[in-house]
Amino acid sequence: MSKVRAFPTVSLDGFMAGPDQSEENPLGVGGEELHDWMVKLEVWKKAHGGEGGETNESSQVVEEMTENVGAGLMGRKMFGPIGGGDWGDGSWKGWWGDDPPYHTPVFVVTHHEREPLEMEGGTTFHFVTDGLESALERAREAAGEKDIAVHGGASIIRQLLAAGHLDELALSVAPRLLGSGERPLDELGANPPHLELERTIAGPDATHMKYRVR
Amino acid sequence: MSKVRAFPTVSLDGFMAGPDQSEENPLGVGGEELHDWMVKLEVWKKAHGGEGGETNESSQVVEEMTENVGAGLMGRKMFGPIGGGDWGDGSWKGWWGDDPPYHTPVFVVTHHEREPLEMEGGTTFHFVTDGLESALERAREAAGEKDIAVHGGASIIRQLLAAGHLDELALSVAPRLLGSGERPLDELGANPPHLELERTIAGPDATHMKYRVR
Repeated sequence: MSKVRAFPTVSLDGFMAGPDQSEENPLGVGGEELHDWMVKLEVWKKAHGGEGGETNESSQVVEEMTENVGAGLMGRKMFGPIGGGDWGDGSWKGWWGDDPPYHTPVFVVTHHEREPLEMEGGTTFHFVTDGLESALERAREAAGEKDIAVHGGASIIRQLLAAGHLDELALSVAPRLLGSGERPLDELGANPPHLELERTIAGPDATHMKYRVR
Repeated sequence: MSKVRAFPTVSLDGFMAGPDQSEENPLGVGGEELHDWMVKLEVWKKAHGGEGGETNESSQVVEEMTENVGAGLMGRKMFGPIGGGDWGDGSWKGWWGDDPPYHTPVFVVTHHEREPLEMEGGTTFHFVTDGLESALERAREAAGEKDIAVHGGASIIRQLLAAGHLDELALSVAPRLLGSGERPLDELGANPPHLELERTIAGPDATHMKYRVR
């Protein structure tokens, strides 16, 4: 069965990104350090064209992120700082260089139309202007039997969870406090979905909990 | 070295208590269920005058809560629903019956004066009306070489953390979403304290992370 999965890293106070996001600081103040546990790993470096790195309990978590993924879903703010008004000269192609680490179609929810953007390595960004539900539907078609990876940001995870569309939530908790920023688990209303704890992995630099969402 | 320690159980969205706290529902809607992982344990039942119960990975966490504790600190709302205006007829003696599970002096931060309340089993509630710092100071004196346990609620943990008074934070995360309520890790400002992950315990019904606060 195809599943809709999100796997955010959050601070201990629940923030996925810190305050004051900008092109220089895409995850806001302190946000990038949330991923210290991940970027030091061999499995992450390899996937991003690097070498070296270590292997520890957290490696499995990074492997699971890309396993059996047939399509991705992403908010406009995660795709880039450009696009609030329009797409400018069209030169912005995401944060990830010519060969993004997704290797699937990725549906970007935005208010502004743009032609699909075919990158190297199998990643194509599709820009969906008629809402999150529509983007999810297109991602389901593209994924087929495979899973849909929700790459973020916080707002899109929150919306999918509140609407009952998320099947699996794999949370990595970094040992940091950010003080403010954006929380994926916030404002979930009076009847938030039920969770079932599937497994916990105690990494040396982060704690990883995987929940089934009911 | 005497440490100031807090060990709240929170929902995955960070709430220590749900909305609509009342005398019937002291932890708010959904709040009591956060502690399902704990109240089923033999170590918890024994400490609260009960029998039976199970032993699992989480038992150690409950044991650590009371180990080497010489004094407690508590907010007025955690002591009881009475006291917003005054102490009424003085018949309110906390939620815990004649023999509360603390067995130490416990300093309750309140705006309203009241004589110390000596309970069975070594627990005495002292009511401190000149602020949290003063209550902490009195708890330090009472604890001596032993630790100070911060029993809650959310507001008092938040204040101690923001002011740099907390030495250890042992968080238990229950597999639940509450949607709203009170968060101990919230509004920590632009320079929140640094954390160091000391250990993780993967309980069957909750995940337990212990951090040293710097």
